[in-house]
Amino acid sequence: MNFKKIGIIGGGQLGKMMVLEGKKLGLHFTVLDPSMDCPAFSIVDEYIEGDFYDKDKIRKLAEATDLITYEFEHIDADILMELKEEGYKIYPTPSTLKIIQDKFQQKNFLRQCNVPVPDFDAVDSVEALDAAVDKYGLPLLLKSCRGGYDGKGNYLIRHREEIPKAYHTLGGDATQLMVEAFVPFIKEVSVVVARGVDGEIKVYPLAENIHENNILKTTIVPARVNKVVAHKAQALALKTMELLKGVGIFCVEMFVDADDDVLVNEIAPRTHNSGHYTIEACSTSQFAQHIRAILGLPLGETKLLKPAVMINLLGGDGYDGRAKLVGAEEILAIPEVYLHFYGKTYTQPERKMGHVTVLAEDVDSALSKGDKVKELMRIIAEE
Amino acid sequence: MNFKKIGIIGGGQLGKMMVLEGKKLGLHFTVLDPSMDCPAFSIVDEYIEGDFYDKDKIRKLAEATDLITYEFEHIDADILMELKEEGYKIYPTPSTLKIIQDKFQQKNFLRQCNVPVPDFDAVDSVEALDAAVDKYGLPLLLKSCRGGYDGKGNYLIRHREEIPKAYHTLGGDATQLMVEAFVPFIKEVSVVVARGVDGEIKVYPLAENIHENNILKTTIVPARVNKVVAHKAQALALKTMELLKGVGIFCVEMFVDADDDVLVNEIAPRTHNSGHYTIEACSTSQFAQHIRAILGLPLGETKLLKPAVMINLLGGDGYDGRAKLVGAEEILAIPEVYLHFYGKTYTQPERKMGHVTVLAEDVDSALSKGDKVKELMRIIAEE
Repeated sequence: MNFKKIGIIGGGQLGKMMVLEGKKLGLHFTVLDPSMDCPAFSIVDEYIEGDFYDKDKIRKLAEATDLITYEFEHIDADILMELKEEGYKIYPTPSTLKIIQDKFQQKNFLRQCNVPVPDFDAVDSVEALDAAVDKYGLPLLLKSCRGGYDGKGNYLIRHREEIPKAYHTLGGDATQLMVEAFVPFIKEVSVVVARGVDGEIKVYPLAENIHENNILKTTIVPARVNKVVAHKAQALALKTMELLKGVGIFCVEMFVDADDDVLVNEIAPRTHNSGHYTIEACSTSQFAQHIRAILGLPLGETKLLKPAVMINLLGGDGYDGRAKLVGAEEILAIPEVYLHFYGKTYTQPERKMGHVTVLAEDVDSALSKGDKVKELMRIIAEE
Repeated sequence: MNFKKIGIIGGGQLGKMMVLEGKKLGLHFTVLDPSMDCPAFSIVDEYIEGDFYDKDKIRKLAEATDLITYEFEHIDADILMELKEEGYKIYPTPSTLKIIQDKFQQKNFLRQCNVPVPDFDAVDSVEALDAAVDKYGLPLLLKSCRGGYDGKGNYLIRHREEIPKAYHTLGGDATQLMVEAFVPFIKEVSVVVARGVDGEIKVYPLAENIHENNILKTTIVPARVNKVVAHKAQALALKTMELLKGVGIFCVEMFVDADDDVLVNEIAPRTHNSGHYTIEACSTSQFAQHIRAILGLPLGETKLLKPAVMINLLGGDGYDGRAKLVGAEEILAIPEVYLHFYGKTYTQPERKMGHVTVLAEDVDSALSKGDKVKELMRIIAEE
């Protein structure tokens, strides 16, 4: 194996699950994260305390390892560019990261490559936003170009009166904003794609995602769409990955509309919550695949072994304190139910604390097992 | 979940793989091992440096955790008995461990319970060994009652002249020895069994094992035996587990002879090398199952998802030094090949450095993939 020491920027659950896979191969991991309380901390070899924009700490990470990767895209891409020019190995490459980090640039890149995306425009004033509402109608999505995730940095404008509030809430005077035409989607879907250092590509099955309050709640695989849509979405993910020359795992989130058109919504240059089902449902999990890809190893099989439903375990409403899991014993009595608890000490409403994947012979059975899991399982706080 | 802090006596590959599963559930692990260079070290929360017979350190482990388990049976059972009486939770229970630790006691227990075992006798002098050769004929197996594994502590006597040498090689004047009638087996098989705190039992498929120099080389699942033999062996493993009141994962190793009789050879009160295939080939791996069992959680499914062949990666002959893996890239290009490298720094001839599991649609295809793996993969030492 070419590389033995891997540096990860970010020690959240995605970093943790990457380390769990890499440890099977005997790899050495160093994680850079602002908090020792991060999920990956207890299983890494070395830890560097630092912010994701701390150039010195990122440089330290590069010097301590053979290869840098990341579990989070809102990090300092400039220092990564610099380090890459000095010869450090960084995957996904900083140039790809730069395109993706800025949502306006990302969409622009895709549109120029003829990848179907919702209509969008930059807006730099309340007046421009007003004009955009005239052009695209309501509802209209206002977005920060940088830094948003799980709906943070997004504002769905439903009434004209909200225009100034939306603009100021997202800090329009200091931050680059964009509008995106609202897509009356009938499904949100996503595809995890892996691309190796040598350009080998493997596409995972199409996943159907259900969000609530902009946070992923449930992923259903295979997505309940017709074959044409599934094929179109997977082909779009593959094309996007080829265009971006991504290395590692990427996730392409898409909308399906009533005409069966598929539009790219957002790209994550990393393993993704909607790909957690791959741990138990595919031959090669997205985390194992990411490691194969960035180490220059051949990619593994991406076939779906069994239909799967993934349910996010979010911190329960009204609980803020040391996390406590309720219902684990009950759900583990159901066959083919897999519990993942990230080990975060504290819970808060809607914080991603863990997830459960259920497998079954068909999607309907997986969904009904999933309903039981939702009914039984809660994350509360200790008294 | 009832317990959050687990103490493991032993930080070898079995301990490491247990931690990798437990970390998915967010559990906290403390390992007691003589060496910081042990495979589990880098992924545990706490480490206690200590010998497996160090009563003080074992007590310290009990005090630091909610529950003790072990990955190795040659440990101080007396202190575990003491701790259990004081109210500490220890699984498998020290009383079960005591029966198993001493091979003579183990066989005696099984024979008394009408579990078929090879004939055996204690021998405490060269003369007694001589008489045993008269009684059972040659070849005859001489064994240390305690402490042996991977053929260590065994001597297969083939000629009468070897009797004194065999007796003294195993330290007969200072150590309890026993003889065991040689079973002209046609297959060596094993069954991994799980039993929960509440007595729930789940039996894994029958595995066929191929040893060389008394070290496990290959495990083939399902074992290539007829259904009657498979059923008999699984029933025997189940019965043995019930009799022993084991809690956690146990492995029952058995011989199959030309008459399709099945005899119990040895019991390991822990996860076992011949059960590594369960990581990829079963719904619940032996490590995940062990954790479920000792935490009082419901046991998971043990069904075989696909035929599997597990190949041990042993240190290559003539190599002694910092370990280096050759062939990883090549084997990972074969579909459904899973590499596990334990992360031991140094290799020695026949040291267990890792393993590879291959899955396929049928046993023959898995075996031929396995042959390719054996051909391509080597553990050597760095120059």
